[in-house]
Amino acid sequence: MHEEVVRFGVSMETDLLQRFDERIARQHYPTRSEAIRDLIRRGLVEEEWAAGAQDVIGTVTLVYDHHVRNLTQRLNEFQHRHAGEVIMSSHVHLDRHNCLEVVVVRGPAQRVRDLADHLRAVRGVKHATLSATTTGAGLP
Amino acid sequence: MHEEVVRFGVSMETDLLQRFDERIARQHYPTRSEAIRDLIRRGLVEEEWAAGAQDVIGTVTLVYDHHVRNLTQRLNEFQHRHAGEVIMSSHVHLDRHNCLEVVVVRGPAQRVRDLADHLRAVRGVKHATLSATTTGAGLP
Amino acid sequence: MHEEVVRFGVSMETDLLQRFDERIARQHYPTRSEAIRDLIRRGLVEEEWAAGAQDVIGTVTLVYDHHVRNLTQRLNEFQHRHAGEVIMSSHVHLDRHNCLEVVVVRGPAQRVRDLADHLRAVRGVKHATLSATTTGAGLP
Amino acid sequence: MHEEVVRFGVSMETDLLQRFDERIARQHYPTRSEAIRDLIRRGLVEEEWAAGAQDVIGTVTLVYDHHVRNLTQRLNEFQHRHAGEVIMSSHVHLDRHNCLEVVVVRGPAQRVRDLADHLRAVRGVKHATLSATTTGAGLP
Repeated sequence: MHEEVVRFGVSMETDLLQRFDERIARQHYPTRSEAIRDLIRRGLVEEEWAAGAQDVIGTVTLVYDHHVRNLTQRLNEFQHRHAGEVIMSSHVHLDRHNCLEVVVVRGPAQRVRDLADHLRAVRGVKHATLSATTTGAGLP
Repeated sequence: MHEEVVRFGVSMETDLLQRFDERIARQHYPTRSEAIRDLIRRGLVEEEWAAGAQDVIGTVTLVYDHHVRNLTQRLNEFQHRHAGEVIMSSHVHLDRHNCLEVVVVRGPAQRVRDLADHLRAVRGVKHATLSATTTGAGLP
Repeated sequence: MHEEVVRFGVSMETDLLQRFDERIARQHYPTRSEAIRDLIRRGLVEEEWAAGAQDVIGTVTLVYDHHVRNLTQRLNEFQHRHAGEVIMSSHVHLDRHNCLEVVVVRGPAQRVRDLADHLRAVRGVKHATLSATTTGAGLP
Repeated sequence: MHEEVVRFGVSMETDLLQRFDERIARQHYPTRSEAIRDLIRRGLVEEEWAAGAQDVIGTVTLVYDHHVRNLTQRLNEFQHRHAGEVIMSSHVHLDRHNCLEVVVVRGPAQRVRDLADHLRAVRGVKHATLSATTTGAGLP
């Protein structure tokens, strides 16, 4: 962290500032600056995805019943076929039937969405979500 | 607008500030302060809805085919039955078949969601969206 | 409604069907078919917006304090300058200070988003939401 | 998978069915039934979170700069303090500066959201997303 830091002024109605201070306390932020930086970074990452950025990261969370025939096998083979994009996965045993698998994917936004769609569509996968995040590069 | 306005300092990495300035230009904000106030207000309104606030406003946008038998009639009667909550509606003729109707609803968040569900479920309504907004009261 | 209607079979676990039936009752759907058509149409409209369709409709809901100097005037002039895209607006008086304005915009998805950003960024506008909907054309 | 499976009929305009078939091909679904079951399950999980269910799963994805003093340490200690809820985490090295950490959390929906807020607010965390998913129990 050898980033140069600047300081600038923000004007705000006292009532709005009070409501903001209460909210960032509920959200556990140490300072107003950290909360504001977070709001800004969140907007920048949303814009990257909306603009179809070429290098983003997505976390795909799958919940499935591992008793479905060959399902674990098929999910594993799918990930291997896309080894350039699937950078890792982790597995959690939820109960006797249900597994959770977290698959981290990197690539162009459209491609990451497509791989998430692919995983969601596999028969036996009950639920799939995609978290749209960033490589962090160029995002101080 | 006789609100008292205060000014406070925000610290930020220069690179992040530069990306923020580029973004707020794309979004047409006149100043950083206005952009930051907007990010904060948006968070506050989201929280109101998530917490089930007792007095919020929702805009329900319906697209439907007015040739479906009795549909316009049924939508109108529904709104009248809920006249305490439906505060107005406007109608746009999109083409020979399709109409757009904007219905503004006020009440507890859960109730506004329920009325939107009701309108969406009417046979012949093709698409319904709910914009979750605020009465503005207590939101400087 | 001279559309030809077909019927096809869907297979589902009895437990899932029961949970679905309970949910569509809570959502006030008259039939399973209507609920399923709605889920499908919602996905199609989302895809239109994500793909940057050339002709969509957006409803922009603004909440603002009309005491802010010239604000009503500026919002009105903005809409007139974009008269080809802004197809109507309605106004609601919420209380002594706050107004709600619903602006219906039609055009390419990217352009509709840009006009919504523009309206949100006007000083004095407290909150702006965009409902992403459809012209209904080609959407049975 | 010893679930009993039933079959029921859905009626739909031929044009809508055609657009649905094109879309599920783009999404890689093997059958219409699988696509429809997925739409239904997604709605059920959204409702669980909106209703504040007592046992859900969330995946929190964090991107951070591990050069921020003590950050890795602090994130680790935080997770240990909440060991009853944080069920696992995985770590990916993105580049010389940036790390990605995936934290799987289980508990009441409101509590999972609160832990995600906590992690997001830690100084040095650039971006945090929460994927709202399910334990899969009772969700065929």
